[in-house]
Amino acid sequence: MNPMRIGLLGLGTAGGGTYQILLRNREEIARRAGREIHVVTAAVRDLDKAKAKFGLDLRLTTNPEYVVDAPDVDIVVELMGGIEPARSLILAAIRKGKHVVTANKALLALHGNEIFSEAQKYGVMVAFEAAVAGGIPIIKALREGLTANRIQWVAGIINGTSNFILTRMRDEGASFADALAEAQKLGYAEADPTFDIEGIDAAHKLTIMAAIAFGVPMKFDQAYTEGISKLTAADIQYAEEFGYRIKLLGICRRTDHGFELRVHPTLIPERQLIANVDGVMNAILVRGDAVGSTLYYGAGAGAEPTGSAVVADLVDVTRMHTADPDHRVPHLAFQPDRLSDLNVVPIEGVVTSYYLRLRALDRPGVLADVTRILADNGISIEAMLQREPAEGEEQVDVIFLTHRTLESSMNAAIAKIEALTSIAGPAVRIRMESLAS
Amino acid sequence: MNPMRIGLLGLGTAGGGTYQILLRNREEIARRAGREIHVVTAAVRDLDKAKAKFGLDLRLTTNPEYVVDAPDVDIVVELMGGIEPARSLILAAIRKGKHVVTANKALLALHGNEIFSEAQKYGVMVAFEAAVAGGIPIIKALREGLTANRIQWVAGIINGTSNFILTRMRDEGASFADALAEAQKLGYAEADPTFDIEGIDAAHKLTIMAAIAFGVPMKFDQAYTEGISKLTAADIQYAEEFGYRIKLLGICRRTDHGFELRVHPTLIPERQLIANVDGVMNAILVRGDAVGSTLYYGAGAGAEPTGSAVVADLVDVTRMHTADPDHRVPHLAFQPDRLSDLNVVPIEGVVTSYYLRLRALDRPGVLADVTRILADNGISIEAMLQREPAEGEEQVDVIFLTHRTLESSMNAAIAKIEALTSIAGPAVRIRMESLAS
Repeated sequence: MNPMRIGLLGLGTAGGGTYQILLRNREEIARRAGREIHVVTAAVRDLDKAKAKFGLDLRLTTNPEYVVDAPDVDIVVELMGGIEPARSLILAAIRKGKHVVTANKALLALHGNEIFSEAQKYGVMVAFEAAVAGGIPIIKALREGLTANRIQWVAGIINGTSNFILTRMRDEGASFADALAEAQKLGYAEADPTFDIEGIDAAHKLTIMAAIAFGVPMKFDQAYTEGISKLTAADIQYAEEFGYRIKLLGICRRTDHGFELRVHPTLIPERQLIANVDGVMNAILVRGDAVGSTLYYGAGAGAEPTGSAVVADLVDVTRMHTADPDHRVPHLAFQPDRLSDLNVVPIEGVVTSYYLRLRALDRPGVLADVTRILADNGISIEAMLQREPAEGEEQVDVIFLTHRTLESSMNAAIAKIEALTSIAGPAVRIRMESLAS
Repeated sequence: MNPMRIGLLGLGTAGGGTYQILLRNREEIARRAGREIHVVTAAVRDLDKAKAKFGLDLRLTTNPEYVVDAPDVDIVVELMGGIEPARSLILAAIRKGKHVVTANKALLALHGNEIFSEAQKYGVMVAFEAAVAGGIPIIKALREGLTANRIQWVAGIINGTSNFILTRMRDEGASFADALAEAQKLGYAEADPTFDIEGIDAAHKLTIMAAIAFGVPMKFDQAYTEGISKLTAADIQYAEEFGYRIKLLGICRRTDHGFELRVHPTLIPERQLIANVDGVMNAILVRGDAVGSTLYYGAGAGAEPTGSAVVADLVDVTRMHTADPDHRVPHLAFQPDRLSDLNVVPIEGVVTSYYLRLRALDRPGVLADVTRILADNGISIEAMLQREPAEGEEQVDVIFLTHRTLESSMNAAIAKIEALTSIAGPAVRIRMESLAS
């Protein structure tokens, strides 16, 4: 059978990894796919650099439209990132009847509804395993492996940069700023790290997972997003003392009122496997009503892990290339006419447990005031820790772990607590999840 | 579209779980699959018991051939277990052009080559996600999620019963016999536990994973199988002191001489995530050349976890029911005409590290003799531990951890060590794996 012919948009980290894998494992991949998969052309930013790196086997161009239009390209692989021109190029490829593989989480989270609807109209596949958690086949697991289940929740460490920073803060007691600087030095964080450290990248990936877990359209604009830049090594240390680790989790959960869609630092029990996922590694814990909890772990970024996911998609698309669209797995796991209109629960409506750290004056009655306010707001306390004040210090850290409560109740309580004259400065509030059921 | 019609062979744990999931999640599953999936008939052993349990929605029979022959059955689901009559029934279904879903690892490990060859001849699918690691979608991950990769090795905790026993031995210092008795009391081990504790069940599952990882036929007869029944709490404790856990691992690994296929107790570093998979849970660590290490964790047995995998297969088969066989994923991941003739490396040819415990007389020169024998056989020592003899004891435990060496060299060394007059009784030898790369 003739080789399947690929056009790459972008030959950077992910594009280069994809190209290398297709070359190195050409035979192994053909033994699986039933035909060879060849990259025939690639659009790059710097022609000379790409030529030096990848030789002359490849038709190179600086014009991405050339790749989309090329009559000998069967599948367009978009690995350039960003919203435009990626969006226009993908839509153009779809309208030419070409299948698309992309790793572009931001684009799918923001414009996935438009892209998938257009793909359906033109009867082509848009595959995106590489968009979430790099080489971990989590899209396939959620979309095909767990189809028996009503998915109850998904909780994932889906940003390697912030997980690396949190790991350094815990292991070395480093400050956030120092850990970020180290991540930048090692190439794990970009010069402008906002997307990674403020949870935006994680929210993109979470949006995609929620869509296929619950059968809902992409609702990135309704995701609650809170990053790790305000975390202190002290809070990580206190959490440890209670038997918890702090991870930046993306959580989507089905509730009676819709579904939650939130990214924030989270205390999780250290005995949970996912609490022990360190460094740049990713892991996703999925709870289904039939299977219970399953966990998927691996490298969430990097040239070849990302390329591994792209090539898996290419093999899938190669197999189904000429198949009737009815035989294909729906883009968002559920048949397009059977998507749900579940609402996103606003963060104020989320029910969870909390870690609460207060800076209190070391004088009588403070604890009585605080615990009274918590009780008045229906918040019950699971554990408490108060440190001896350091020599010459007039303030002490008081930490509470609470039982599950409504976020709006916690907000109300915190406002009252911060208004106490015996409380110095703002309260630190970090959400907690047991992930047990 | 008309519902897909299912006939169940067996309505015990796995069959009952499958039936319940299909009922409870009927709508959710149809939203994914594009049509409903109905169980129309089931063959059971005890008609009255089944009627009492599942009511009258279902045509029940004690004759499994009736289910295979029934003209309104599109897919036959074999969940009775054992070799016969399961094998004959599956072959009969295939020859009638019916697709098959099975959880029967023993049957596939022993007769998979015959079954898949017949399935190909008749153009039907035989799906078997539930045969390995229950609800964890590991077959899908290996067969479809990691197609970009040259798989280097797979190492799995794939028998929940023995993992439960090992967990109790470690947590409680229980003896093997006591931990087994507890597992039997809790229903985790059968009255005759041989298959679970002697590694046979794990070897069945490993055989299947090796086939799809490397693209080789089933070679169960060449698997090396060693169980946990001879392990002592003392060895588990000593392993701990060196920073290791002991797990029953199924390992298949590509080498220059073929591939290894072995099940045995294994020391693994406690910092490895898989070392912390406890109780009846399963986990599989897969090393691919592109993706690096990925791990898959979840419930390896039980009614609904197994049913979850069966139903996922049913959805896949439902989607591809009328598709051209060329569009389907090959049974063993690789195209049937592109399977490899890789040999199984005999256990004597395996290279690995070792934990070696000797019972030595407490007198001068013993260590010199032992270390000389190890050196003469080219075995270098990574760590050593010698206990003070207990009051009145004349023998002491001496434990060595070795660097990687050939199993046959270790066998030769052990024979010579056991022949020393200063060594009391047989040496305890447990293999070690770093699982790092």
